Amino acid sequence: MTEPSTSERRGTSAAGPAADLAPSGRTETISDGVFAIAITLLVLNLHVPGAVEQKDAGGALQALVDEWPAYLSYLATFLTVALVWMNHHALFTHIRYVDQKLQWINIAILLGICLAPFPNALVADALRTGLSSEAAKAAAGAYGLVFMLMTLPWIFVWERLARRPELLRPPYTAAWARRERVRGALGAAVYACGIGIAWISPLLAMGLFLLLALFYAVTARGFAPDHEMRAIDV
Amino acid sequence: MTEPSTSERRGTSAAGPAADLAPSGRTETISDGVFAIAITLLVLNLHVPGAVEQKDAGGALQALVDEWPAYLSYLATFLTVALVWMNHHALFTHIRYVDQKLQWINIAILLGICLAPFPNALVADALRTGLSSEAAKAAAGAYGLVFMLMTLPWIFVWERLARRPELLRPPYTAAWARRERVRGALGAAVYACGIGIAWISPLLAMGLFLLLALFYAVTARGFAPDHEMRAIDV
Amino acid sequence: MTEPSTSERRGTSAAGPAADLAPSGRTETISDGVFAIAITLLVLNLHVPGAVEQKDAGGALQALVDEWPAYLSYLATFLTVALVWMNHHALFTHIRYVDQKLQWINIAILLGICLAPFPNALVADALRTGLSSEAAKAAAGAYGLVFMLMTLPWIFVWERLARRPELLRPPYTAAWARRERVRGALGAAVYACGIGIAWISPLLAMGLFLLLALFYAVTARGFAPDHEMRAIDV
Amino acid sequence: MTEPSTSERRGTSAAGPAADLAPSGRTETISDGVFAIAITLLVLNLHVPGAVEQKDAGGALQALVDEWPAYLSYLATFLTVALVWMNHHALFTHIRYVDQKLQWINIAILLGICLAPFPNALVADALRTGLSSEAAKAAAGAYGLVFMLMTLPWIFVWERLARRPELLRPPYTAAWARRERVRGALGAAVYACGIGIAWISPLLAMGLFLLLALFYAVTARGFAPDHEMRAIDV
Repeated sequence: MTEPSTSERRGTSAAGPAADLAPSGRTETISDGVFAIAITLLVLNLHVPGAVEQKDAGGALQALVDEWPAYLSYLATFLTVALVWMNHHALFTHIRYVDQKLQWINIAILLGICLAPFPNALVADALRTGLSSEAAKAAAGAYGLVFMLMTLPWIFVWERLARRPELLRPPYTAAWARRERVRGALGAAVYACGIGIAWISPLLAMGLFLLLALFYAVTARGFAPDHEMRAIDV
Repeated sequence: MTEPSTSERRGTSAAGPAADLAPSGRTETISDGVFAIAITLLVLNLHVPGAVEQKDAGGALQALVDEWPAYLSYLATFLTVALVWMNHHALFTHIRYVDQKLQWINIAILLGICLAPFPNALVADALRTGLSSEAAKAAAGAYGLVFMLMTLPWIFVWERLARRPELLRPPYTAAWARRERVRGALGAAVYACGIGIAWISPLLAMGLFLLLALFYAVTARGFAPDHEMRAIDV
Repeated sequence: MTEPSTSERRGTSAAGPAADLAPSGRTETISDGVFAIAITLLVLNLHVPGAVEQKDAGGALQALVDEWPAYLSYLATFLTVALVWMNHHALFTHIRYVDQKLQWINIAILLGICLAPFPNALVADALRTGLSSEAAKAAAGAYGLVFMLMTLPWIFVWERLARRPELLRPPYTAAWARRERVRGALGAAVYACGIGIAWISPLLAMGLFLLLALFYAVTARGFAPDHEMRAIDV
Repeated sequence: MTEPSTSERRGTSAAGPAADLAPSGRTETISDGVFAIAITLLVLNLHVPGAVEQKDAGGALQALVDEWPAYLSYLATFLTVALVWMNHHALFTHIRYVDQKLQWINIAILLGICLAPFPNALVADALRTGLSSEAAKAAAGAYGLVFMLMTLPWIFVWERLARRPELLRPPYTAAWARRERVRGALGAAVYACGIGIAWISPLLAMGLFLLLALFYAVTARGFAPDHEMRAIDV
């Protein structure tokens, strides 16, 4: 959490920022809350009513194992939300102030995160009817659509930061924010492909979404500025 | 989050506030928690049991699309709660201390926020029975009533701040708090109209509540004091 | 939230506290989280399946109104949890450090808070079967029992603080902590009476629990030390 | 919560840490949120539909008491999550910075915590079919498996801290982190035994998991460094 002085916080100090800016602290707090809740609510989609009805332990275990598509969907969604949280965390280490527009863009990001348990439940339920069932195709397609929409507000984040670089912590600049837009657009493109793949194999699409989260995780630069940034740092 | 010194926090320093005051920090923390949870729990109202039973992907997709009134209700409620959070955030940038009464008024605000998923579920369920069904009229009316009651504690917030201006951060004054009461009363009036409209068309009423959230969002002054405030600032 | 210096936080500074003490900050954070979630989850007990089945708006409204015992139970539980949070907040303004034992006593307090939605759901469900039904008597009795158990860890809080006054912020002392034990025991006694009353009238018992929350709220001294404390202050 | 200076937070100060490090503050915040939510969601597994159907209060009370295996499971899971939170809290008092890898290891810890309500629900549901039913054996075995997997990321925490001791607060060193790995492995071993015991008596296994939480609680050194650490301190 940023720790602005009281005068920074009120945004009214003489040498301070424009009067419509607020420090980013409380925006980070509520965002963390939403991420934490959304990622924890996913567990409510896991339930195995059939296990209780089994007469022998082997059958009950089998009923638990048979739920593996729900576990796959859970894992893909969990890791994707965790990844978005990591990106959100990294983003706000570069942001010093929020204005009204950036607040609403952040709420659009949180809308996507809050929605995540819904397509997850759709896919988990549909995969129970068969791994390539028609219902599973529609559900995985809807999953891809919701997560594609989820990437869009990120493009506006960079757009806003490029237009109003005083929101950024130095040495980050408008030029840096413009370069970052590409990453956001890339995510949207991959999810669009996923929607197409869902029509062929819902399971393959869910696997792709899981891989995407892992790929982003591995390639994320985290808190470290890249080579270009190092140049700006100097 | 405000960052009072330890002596400010205990409210016992010689030059500090009256002994029954506490800094607003932890009140903001729990409020953020409640907002974050209420806004995330809304997703539990979204479920499409019919989609799984479909034999073809087109039918499953259609079942998903047919849920649009639930999505509309979700969006209206999500944006309204987000808007109230934005107002709460803006309010507390002006507040330095809380007393026992302001704490209870804040709990009344949180009561409304905690309740929000309930009328949202009522409307989403009722709209499934028909867009102008009698049940939908009653549900949209109840929705308007709960959200109207939700605006009332805000009037008492300004009332309390007007009576005890030492709770405010300078340069905000009792006169400023008195002027703000009007905004609260306006919200209550609009929701009262919405209850009437719900009796004609539940869908129109829900659209109005969505528009109201967007209107407030656009006209919100956010953290910037208005022209009058600038005068006080000088 | 307390704001200890880094050395205070690590509890290793030369002039600092004993090595098994930690500042109370993160304990307050997770407690606030639990309070916020428990108070928000209560809404999941509100649902009116009958309203959707009604053919006319009047009948649908009637179905909503008929749920009033559930609303009463909701309100009593909401206000009681809010009240406990207020007391918890007031308590931690007097606490500077936590040790292992105080942490576990705090977890016992949180156990009660986490459980609160359960007896609330029992009472709301049982009152639907009749305001003085046998099931309602058992449910209201169970409600009283859970809330009585909820008051017990508070006695241990004061006990622990009396034994280890270095956990307290000066000028609060072991003598003060000993005096506070009485308040905790009083709450347990009132809930014990409530269990008896539940056997005569469940509704009366729920009304009593609601009144108890309001009474404590009115009589709470909040952050202000009482007359005795003022004497200690000087 | 740690309170790094702004320059520490950005991780770019000249004398500061390597550029890929971030202070641990926001990681603690989201972790606290996940712990608080997971521990509170457990209550959703408690429900006694049979109590409402009883005609006399005695029968309704009996129905409540008959749920005791669900209460036992609730208590074991609640205390285990609380214990993991205590350990997490103690761990982060020793950590100053997080890097990308430690963040992902922490997310793996949180994955286990988020999952906890699922095996808890399995066991509570299965014990209703009989205390040594085949379904209960499978459920308690699954419970042990999930909690065993939950202990694994802790080994990687110590591994990471041993490899990169600059993440630690002095005087904690790589040698200390290596010694701590043993504790994590011990937990995994106990849960593995529990899986075996579940095949003989599910109830005994659940009792063991409850005892394990209590044992760890009693033996935990909390924030106090042990004798070896005192030596390092000097």
